[in-house]
Parts: sequence; structure tokens; C-alpha cells
Amino acid sequence: MPYTMPLDQIRQARERIRPYVRHTPLAPAPHLTSDVPAHLRLKLENLQVGGSFKARGVFNTLLQLDDEARRRGVVAASGGNHGVALAYGAYTLGIPATIFLPAASTPDRIARVKRWTEDVQLVGSVWDEAHAAASEFAAAQGMVYVHPFDADATIAGQGTLGLELLDDLPDLDCVLIAIGGGGLIAGMSAAIRQVKPSVRIIGVEPTGAPSLQHSLDAGKVEPLPEVVTIAETLAPRSVSTRTLELAQQYVDEILLVDDGAMIDSMRWLWLHYNQLVEPSGVAVIAALPQVDLAAYRCPVALICGGNAAADSVFDYYSEAALKKGSLSPKVTTS
Amino acid sequence: MPYTMPLDQIRQARERIRPYVRHTPLAPAPHLTSDVPAHLRLKLENLQVGGSFKARGVFNTLLQLDDEARRRGVVAASGGNHGVALAYGAYTLGIPATIFLPAASTPDRIARVKRWTEDVQLVGSVWDEAHAAASEFAAAQGMVYVHPFDADATIAGQGTLGLELLDDLPDLDCVLIAIGGGGLIAGMSAAIRQVKPSVRIIGVEPTGAPSLQHSLDAGKVEPLPEVVTIAETLAPRSVSTRTLELAQQYVDEILLVDDGAMIDSMRWLWLHYNQLVEPSGVAVIAALPQVDLAAYRCPVALICGGNAAADSVFDYYSEAALKKGSLSPKVTTS
Repeated sequence: MPYTMPLDQIRQARERIRPYVRHTPLAPAPHLTSDVPAHLRLKLENLQVGGSFKARGVFNTLLQLDDEARRRGVVAASGGNHGVALAYGAYTLGIPATIFLPAASTPDRIARVKRWTEDVQLVGSVWDEAHAAASEFAAAQGMVYVHPFDADATIAGQGTLGLELLDDLPDLDCVLIAIGGGGLIAGMSAAIRQVKPSVRIIGVEPTGAPSLQHSLDAGKVEPLPEVVTIAETLAPRSVSTRTLELAQQYVDEILLVDDGAMIDSMRWLWLHYNQLVEPSGVAVIAALPQVDLAAYRCPVALICGGNAAADSVFDYYSEAALKKGSLSPKVTTS
Repeated sequence: MPYTMPLDQIRQARERIRPYVRHTPLAPAPHLTSDVPAHLRLKLENLQVGGSFKARGVFNTLLQLDDEARRRGVVAASGGNHGVALAYGAYTLGIPATIFLPAASTPDRIARVKRWTEDVQLVGSVWDEAHAAASEFAAAQGMVYVHPFDADATIAGQGTLGLELLDDLPDLDCVLIAIGGGGLIAGMSAAIRQVKPSVRIIGVEPTGAPSLQHSLDAGKVEPLPEVVTIAETLAPRSVSTRTLELAQQYVDEILLVDDGAMIDSMRWLWLHYNQLVEPSGVAVIAALPQVDLAAYRCPVALICGGNAAADSVFDYYSEAALKKGSLSPKVTTS
């Protein structure tokens, strides 16, 4: 029997997390210029608390912990948004959290996590090494390890995004979803297809990190030999049995996009919507040239997260103000 | 008799521009963390076409031009968002547009205007000089000069934002609005107060460019001797008779914010909402510590525009991809 995610679990998750997450907007029409598909809608999940969809799975997990587990605290390994979301969720609920980050994590990621917890460990060069250290630490401390994608509560939580989309847009007939470890597309496609089986589910992966395509081709979970992409939050080496088996049931197609196309799409989204998002967030935009949008009435591209490295922008304005003399050199803005 | 802006004109403007502008979202609740006022809503007008509220006044103006005027084309002087909006609006409607920019305009502003029109003139060191040259050019060519704030159609167009806000939030009882030349606060406050007189209207200006406060104190339009702020789109030296007289009727209070507070607020909005906006867009956030938010049930801060200088972010990701070898050095992404 393949792994399943019953619709009831996703509906329960939605009620559970409702007070803690945002109902994010569908980007408002119109899209007027000739290079923008007129009927494409963007789901701006970059406006979610913590800056990405990860808050959904995190809150669904944390809210099911008993008092003793809450008191002991939670642990995660994450090079990206899961760590931010877990730190934020734990802070909000008053739960101690320790986040393991690969030592090569960018300063903006580290700062985003440290905003919500002081307990940050920089370990290993890639996620797998941080994951091993974090799992060991959690076991030794008797703390709960919160996996970024391979857990029922996480997948059900991400699935709430599918229900929210169908509520706002009952005519939805196609959705593009980026793939990292596969938890997002697994949960969302399970939610959407169990409510409305006709919706086409299109997954998008970096050409340098096609973890789901690789395992679908192999017919079983099989790690990639290497990953090479700037879309770091889409770059685990492997999906899991849970996410692979849901993808086998519900995902219609996978498209690959390269880093250059993602950077171009970052500029496009900035120009047309004033939304600055990381490469992972625009992978679905980069895939649009491969999609026959005219075949759909209500297609949606999911902007799954923001959290780009934007410090240089604030530095630019601080320097401009210092130069004008309208900012005291003593003032710190960081 | 002071200048008035009848509600009917704003309602007609709203119907006129509806197919061309976006109904922008109110930032979704919840705001959970302790440093975020729980009941404050943000109106994300940075998601407007052209990246700011300016598109509203522009479309209301352009759509009232006769065929002959459309054929001859339009002209504006703008160091900021009005130029972007006019270029975009004219492009959308197939009207020729010539935009005069001060020579010191930042590269990102120039690029945003040039995306929609080739006819860009860099003239003068400040807006007033570009304005003089543009007015002369428009008269000589028989083209329509579209003023950024001192015109009935512009003020009525900006007023549509007030009606939209009341439609989405009938319980609105306080709104914070940034002030440049005053067209936005004039139109919005006229709309809101004629529908619901009890709403408190709070204006926000840079300490280095308090153009409306200066004229309110003088009891007449009086230019500032100098302006010193990085919030360039809030920095004309003077308001106009139209905007001053509407402000005298409808604006309850003006708060001043310095550049350091605006830069801090840019970081705050980025951390909590993943919205990157220029200093002008967060002036209202910078003013929050001066407002007794507990006195209001449904206060709104208007994020009036985005369009920050973000090129450094795309450069960062391009360099990262080149370093990884996942982007060909021959690929141009600009």
C-alpha cells in the first residue's frame, strides 16, 4: 500500500493552525503588459509568517505536542526556511528551539533564525551533516526533532495551502509548485486532488537538483550524486518515501529550470509585482515558458517563499543617508 | 471658497480606472510577535501596477484625454514613481510619453521608466528644474503635461484608494498616509472623510522635507528653503494650493520621521512581511511609535509604493551562480 494523506487530516490541520498563520493573497489582477499571461494568478505565500509556506507544517507539528514535549523543546536542521519557521513558531508558542544550520549558511539566513532563537548551531558543510548532528542532539536531550518534509504533520500542514487555494479560486485547474524534499507538493497535491481530481499538478525542480524526478525515474527513493544550484531551499539530495509515493499518485508532470532562468524571473517578479523573493520562490515563474497556459482557465503559480538576501539594499540606503547628512554615523540600523 | 473634491468625481474615477489598476491587498493577519501591533493592517499599494499609487491618478488622467491629445502624447517630470506610472500607463494605452528625470536620478528609477518608454530626458539637478524643462517641452510640442499632484484628475485618481480601503474595511477608524506633494493625502482624505467623517487622517513627512507642515504653519503655500532626505519621492519643496486646502479641511495631524527611522522600518517590513519597499513606502511605519494605536479599532498604514533600489540583490545571486558554475558567464540577466 502506498503512503496516503487523508483529506480529513489536512482539514484538521487547517483548523488547528488558523490562528497562527496568514491567509495569503492571490496577486491581484490585472496583468496588463504583453509579456504577462493575462489569466495567471500568483499565490503570494512569501507573505506567510516566517516568509514561506514552512510555517504551516511547523505550526501543525508544534500544536500537537504535549506539555512535556513543549517544555523540553524542539530541534531542526535547516539551511533555509524550515529553520526560520520553526524558530518563529517556537518563539510564538513559548517553546525552546535549537536550530542546526550548515556552516556555509548565508548571513541573512542565520540572522533570520537568530531573530527568534539564540540557540543556533553551525555544523557541517551541507544539510545532511547538520541533520545528522541535530538528530543526535535531539535524541540525547530528549527533544523533538522536527523534520522539514518527511513527517505526517508537516505534509498535512503544507497541504492546507491547497485547501486555501481552492477556497479562494474554486475554478483552479492547474497549479505550479516548486520541489525541494517534496513535502509541499505532496501535501498540496493530496489536498487538491482529493477535493478536485481534475486539477493538473506541475512540479518544478532546478536542473542542478532534480531530486524528485530522479527518484520517480528510479521507481524508488534514490539520492542525487550531487546538487548544484543557487536555489538552496530546493536542493536536498533526496526526497522521502512519503513524498515520493504521494507524488507518484498525484503529480502530473515535472519541469526543470536552470539558475539563469530563476535569476531572470526574480527580476521579472520585482518589475511587475514589486515582490523580491529568493530563487526558489520564482522557480515556478522560470518554468512558465514550458507550460501551455492557454490550455487552462485558472492557472496559479505558487510563490512558495521570499527570504532573499537583501542586506545590500539596506546598506545602500544607509550609505545614501550618511552621504546626505540625514543619518548620524553613530546610529546603528542593524 | 477653498478647493473641494466632490465624492462623485472620485467615484467616477474609480469606475474609469478599474480595468487598468489592481485592487491591492490588505496585508493578511495575524501579526503575532510582540513588537507588531496586533490590529494594525497594512494596505500593500506597492503591489499596484507601476509599483505605487501613482498609477491611479495617471490612468484617471489618460483615460479622459481625447483622441487628438492621445495621438500627440504626454509629458511628465518626475524623480520617482509618477514617471514610472505615466510611462507604464501610456505604454498600456498606446500613447507616446516623454519623461523628464533629474540627471541625478538613480539607475533603478531610470531603468524602471525606460522599461515602458524610450523617450527619457535627463535634465537639471532637482525636480523643479526637470519640471520647468518638461513644461516648456510640452507646450512647444502641443503635448499634455501630466502634473504629479497638482491636478483635479490626479487627486481624484489617488482618492480611489480611500474608497477601496473603506470597501474592504468599513470599520476603518484611522489611516496613516505619507506626504510628498500632497496629492495622495488630499485625494484619499477627501474620499474617506466625505464617506465616513469620523476616520482620523494622519499624515507623515520626513523631518528633512516637511512641505505640508511648513505650508500649514504659514497658512499658505510656501516652499521649503531646502530638502534633505533619502525619501526622494516625498521630497518636493512645496505642496500646491489644491493639496494644501484639502489638507486644511481633512488632515487631523502630521507626524515627522527621520531617515534612520525609515531605514529601520524598511528592515522591519522585510523581516515581518517580506516586502521590500523604498524609504517613502515605510514612512508610515516609522511614525508608529508616535501613534496611540490602542485608541483605534481598525487602523491602517498605507504602504504607498515599493520600487526600492534592489539591483544589488540580483547581482549577488548572479555572482553566486557564476561561482557555483551553474550560470554561464555569457548569459546576461539584465
